[in-house]
Amino acid sequence: MKNRLEIHPELVTEMLTRFIKEETEKVGIQKVVFGLSGGIDSALVAFLAVRSLGPERVHAVMMPYKTSSPSSLADAQACVDALGIESSVIDITPQIDAYFERFSDASPLRRGNKMARERMSILYDFSAQLNALVLGTSNKTELLLGYGTQHGDLASGINPIGDLYKTQVRQLARYLGVPKQIIEKPPSADLWENQTDEKELGFTYEDVDRLLILLVDRRYTKEELRNEGFSEEFIDTVIRRITRNQYKRRIPLIAKVSNRTIGIDFRYPRDWGV
Amino acid sequence: MKNRLEIHPELVTEMLTRFIKEETEKVGIQKVVFGLSGGIDSALVAFLAVRSLGPERVHAVMMPYKTSSPSSLADAQACVDALGIESSVIDITPQIDAYFERFSDASPLRRGNKMARERMSILYDFSAQLNALVLGTSNKTELLLGYGTQHGDLASGINPIGDLYKTQVRQLARYLGVPKQIIEKPPSADLWENQTDEKELGFTYEDVDRLLILLVDRRYTKEELRNEGFSEEFIDTVIRRITRNQYKRRIPLIAKVSNRTIGIDFRYPRDWGV
Repeated sequence: MKNRLEIHPELVTEMLTRFIKEETEKVGIQKVVFGLSGGIDSALVAFLAVRSLGPERVHAVMMPYKTSSPSSLADAQACVDALGIESSVIDITPQIDAYFERFSDASPLRRGNKMARERMSILYDFSAQLNALVLGTSNKTELLLGYGTQHGDLASGINPIGDLYKTQVRQLARYLGVPKQIIEKPPSADLWENQTDEKELGFTYEDVDRLLILLVDRRYTKEELRNEGFSEEFIDTVIRRITRNQYKRRIPLIAKVSNRTIGIDFRYPRDWGV
Repeated sequence: MKNRLEIHPELVTEMLTRFIKEETEKVGIQKVVFGLSGGIDSALVAFLAVRSLGPERVHAVMMPYKTSSPSSLADAQACVDALGIESSVIDITPQIDAYFERFSDASPLRRGNKMARERMSILYDFSAQLNALVLGTSNKTELLLGYGTQHGDLASGINPIGDLYKTQVRQLARYLGVPKQIIEKPPSADLWENQTDEKELGFTYEDVDRLLILLVDRRYTKEELRNEGFSEEFIDTVIRRITRNQYKRRIPLIAKVSNRTIGIDFRYPRDWGV
């Protein structure tokens, strides 16, 4: 079977580096900032940003928690060194622990979401300090499955890799020379020891990406998907995740009582040219 | 001149209480949670939520910082008492101070934004704990002017008052019996002593709302606005604010490289019925 997920890395690099350049300069901003976790997604964003703007306009922030794996920080540092970009390390442990003192029985999920939002809040603070645009580092697989924290890692000004499936992120990362150990390690949100995305999701990125591109981009019906060899159960699981997490991909729903409601029928600039 | 901002409070109350009920029950959620600051906007949301769901399904969170005015907390408590709802008080001082220890020269704006995002992050944590939907408390004037913190007070699941101008919020709050001292005090984000919104914005809510309803809802041209007595300078200031803050009213812009890009041409459920 031909690999429908394969991208043309040279062309995609050209599109994404132009996107970063145009979208930052359009709003009069010179720099970009993002969280560098040591994982492949943010590493790819770092490599794209440097290709687009040069290393002196790229600032990476590493934000470990006390339980984060030291190898994650080392992998992030390897990117910083390879690219020669500016970076900061902010330990989020004091803030997180100060909050959870009141809730010592909080679940790992609650803790993980609080950490993701603390990191967002630090990135936006850096954005204000440095007059830098926040780059998103979520890929299309995560965004569709809702595998991420709303107003946390899913938040950004612009996201250069949000239309690339995880397997496409891997392909592009190899092309751009992201350090091998980052490409080859199992993807993980690094919230507890031995956590991996694929264990948590219950399927591999390779399988789900093969399904998603047919379901979302090619608009295959369920029957067509079954004919491609996907099980009914897998198809339903994925569809449920996509629909259940739709709220993470939209702005707050506002109760409409006027002629022009934000997010419904007031959407400058399309609706309102000045 | 006839007051174009006047609403029919009975009808609007009916629309907004139905909105809260339908939007929560549709997603199988029984409760709502929101930040109660002591100001008029969140007080109105509290009154609407109780009318819609009854007091036992409404949880308010008060999140003072050490410099917050004690009278704000007292005003919030007055709402809680009047309505008989559940509430929690979470002091955000330890988390905020732990972060700014590294940046002792941070501006009041940076501090204010960090506080707003910390409050969001706590509300979403309560939302997970209580299985409650986060209600937004930003009004249409603030949303249009971008007078608020992205991924902070501007974040919510659903926002019952986001289509009401500030002066309309006042009208509805009077109708619903929000305590008088809350309606009559000068609006303030309470970030430093004697801060008021109107001093910071440089104009009154009454003036800007009269302009906004003509500009946004009635789509008056600049010339028509001048004929209504608004100065060129005021019109331009307001238009600049609306356009400059558009980014706060949308989801991250994703670089398009596929057939179906999130936020561009993949927008379930409109695009993708299952």
